[in-house]
Amino acid sequence: MIQAEIVSIGDELLIGQVVNTNASWMADALHQAGIEVGHIAAISDTKESIIQALKAASSRANIVLITGGLGPTNDDITKEVLTQYFDGELYFHEPSFRQIERLFGSRNIPITPVNRAQAEIPTSCTPIHNAHGTAPGMWFEKDGTDYFSMPGVPFEMRAMIQEQIIPRILEKHQVGSILHKTILTHGVGESYLAELINEWESSLPTHINLAYLPQPGIVRLRLSGKGSSKDTLEEEIQHYSQRLHDLIPHLIFGYGTESMEEVVGKLLKSKGKSLSTAESCTGGYIAHLLSSMAGSSSFYKGSVVSYADDVKTNSLGVAKELIEEHGAVSQQVVESMALGAQKSLNSDYAIATSGIAGPDGGSPEKPVGTVWIAMAGPDGVQSELLKLGEHRGRNIRRSALAALNMLRLKLTV
Amino acid sequence: MIQAEIVSIGDELLIGQVVNTNASWMADALHQAGIEVGHIAAISDTKESIIQALKAASSRANIVLITGGLGPTNDDITKEVLTQYFDGELYFHEPSFRQIERLFGSRNIPITPVNRAQAEIPTSCTPIHNAHGTAPGMWFEKDGTDYFSMPGVPFEMRAMIQEQIIPRILEKHQVGSILHKTILTHGVGESYLAELINEWESSLPTHINLAYLPQPGIVRLRLSGKGSSKDTLEEEIQHYSQRLHDLIPHLIFGYGTESMEEVVGKLLKSKGKSLSTAESCTGGYIAHLLSSMAGSSSFYKGSVVSYADDVKTNSLGVAKELIEEHGAVSQQVVESMALGAQKSLNSDYAIATSGIAGPDGGSPEKPVGTVWIAMAGPDGVQSELLKLGEHRGRNIRRSALAALNMLRLKLTV
Repeated sequence: MIQAEIVSIGDELLIGQVVNTNASWMADALHQAGIEVGHIAAISDTKESIIQALKAASSRANIVLITGGLGPTNDDITKEVLTQYFDGELYFHEPSFRQIERLFGSRNIPITPVNRAQAEIPTSCTPIHNAHGTAPGMWFEKDGTDYFSMPGVPFEMRAMIQEQIIPRILEKHQVGSILHKTILTHGVGESYLAELINEWESSLPTHINLAYLPQPGIVRLRLSGKGSSKDTLEEEIQHYSQRLHDLIPHLIFGYGTESMEEVVGKLLKSKGKSLSTAESCTGGYIAHLLSSMAGSSSFYKGSVVSYADDVKTNSLGVAKELIEEHGAVSQQVVESMALGAQKSLNSDYAIATSGIAGPDGGSPEKPVGTVWIAMAGPDGVQSELLKLGEHRGRNIRRSALAALNMLRLKLTV
Repeated sequence: MIQAEIVSIGDELLIGQVVNTNASWMADALHQAGIEVGHIAAISDTKESIIQALKAASSRANIVLITGGLGPTNDDITKEVLTQYFDGELYFHEPSFRQIERLFGSRNIPITPVNRAQAEIPTSCTPIHNAHGTAPGMWFEKDGTDYFSMPGVPFEMRAMIQEQIIPRILEKHQVGSILHKTILTHGVGESYLAELINEWESSLPTHINLAYLPQPGIVRLRLSGKGSSKDTLEEEIQHYSQRLHDLIPHLIFGYGTESMEEVVGKLLKSKGKSLSTAESCTGGYIAHLLSSMAGSSSFYKGSVVSYADDVKTNSLGVAKELIEEHGAVSQQVVESMALGAQKSLNSDYAIATSGIAGPDGGSPEKPVGTVWIAMAGPDGVQSELLKLGEHRGRNIRRSALAALNMLRLKLTV
């Protein structure tokens, strides 16, 4: 039985200056590799705390992952403590020094004695190459437990975990095959989705688990299978994923780590079509999502964020009378906004939003959370009314996703 | 001597599904109140783990804060374990039930037996009112250590900590007065700022500490003072804060938890002026920052996100020839964009951005990170060249902050 623990060293964690995202990232990576984490501790950068944490961890686990306290400054005493605890002596490790030289050379910075000392490691460890930084990792073995010590810099630690530490653990311990597939849904909430797919969920074999991972506007479904044959597992997960797709095809917008805007961007690119947006209640958030993707300028033309009514009229050509008659938050106005963006920004498709994001501005007929979205395309315009909640930030996010999803559905027909 | 520990219960933390932001929030709140946290543990929702964690914590600390495992479902066994561990028996606590009734009544939901059971608490605890949820908190005392158990729902836990738990701890333990003041700076990096204020920093008395808290584009400086007299401390912190302000007045944009967009929004409101934006490389992010603030429609008119050059021409009136001659990323074009937004969106002020956010699109003369920002106002237009880094997301964030700051400086003259 394999059981892992995480020990995060650093006073910045104990005063709440830094959130321990390293620990959750490691826990997720280990979990996905089939290695169970039983305990996570954040401790102070002192000899006493480190030794106490190592002893406590080894009494419960046979894998201990340690991060932090390997920086170049004098405050970091992790290496000193580990050297003593595992009965070693520091020696100068040539390959680690060459890595330091390589990194400093590429940045044209002189190497100080403090940096040079980073290449010193205890005789009792197997060094772990740090592809992205100057402090090498260290692997100790004592009384049947493996200890891996890494720097706390996230991208240095992540590369070590993925490329070296998890493979070494899996070489030594039999955990069987683990496969995951994440299916991304949009359009219904967690509990309604659970009802829709209830029968399918019950049909899953016991070695395939389902986790619901909800976020505002999105529910991710993660299938996790354990078994001895990777090929069989792959086939099984593919089978159940396909059956789920057949059940709720319109609700699934992607797989894995894709985002809604990535999916929409890929569809537009593959069809050689362009997009513009006209945003009132989302206030530029859709534009921000699209333009945050590298290369989005190949399909995205831009946006008119028409917060004020005269901007709707002047920049999008929405008739003043339409706003006066129906109000800015109305089917008529949002459709006119989409058509106006399509025309004035000269794009194949345009999506538009107009709504009451809150917390103020609601009325009995149009309470906070009332949002109209529209999409204009080569064959006309369509629109939809959303009834969202009271939280401004979540209303903005959910409106943006719904508008992008409306376009996605159009592009996948 | 007072020493606190945090125990976070929940399997979702150990599989990396949820980042332990509760623990860092609590650590920060306690630290700011002068209570030191020595250890944070994330553990599994099992009897054995909970008892082991309580024993370990009480061997080191005299305050133990426990979150999680107080939900209505059967999986949550924290309450059962605490009842046994502190030698009590569950009884029906009327005031807690009335709180459940009140919450369910306001939402028009019937109370199930499972919800009713949340009002049962151990005889060995002092209940802690949960103003925002159905699960009451519990305060136990054993062998000189205080244990506070709270639900894991962030806003329920936070209110309990701030309004009830920290005051109770401070009533019982003498920690002296603690005062903090956070000064927000923009415009220079951490190390250059450190040089600028080096002498001032050295002049701080030993009981007033300075912490640098850098974020992309912003460096927060936190002064923390400890002393016996709160009034003296307030005067001292005010004195040093004022001296810092005199030293770098243009670099300080705000205090405490203010954001740059809030500061700019307040200035515009107080002067009764309106703003529009013309965004190329920031792609709607400035619009998103401004429109995410409730009430921003009173000063913010909207944005033209001119990702494509023809949008710059058609919607902002930037002359085609200007773009052909100087390129879209140029002083001439960004100034024309700002003037175009000011005119076509009919606002007092307008800010504009045009740059190469990366990772592609750079050239030897205009490498990735080259960004022009401009501001148009009642007395003309001004612009500035930024040379940022290679990270697209950070370039977008830093360009937006710089453009808002340009307007802030204009409005504070």
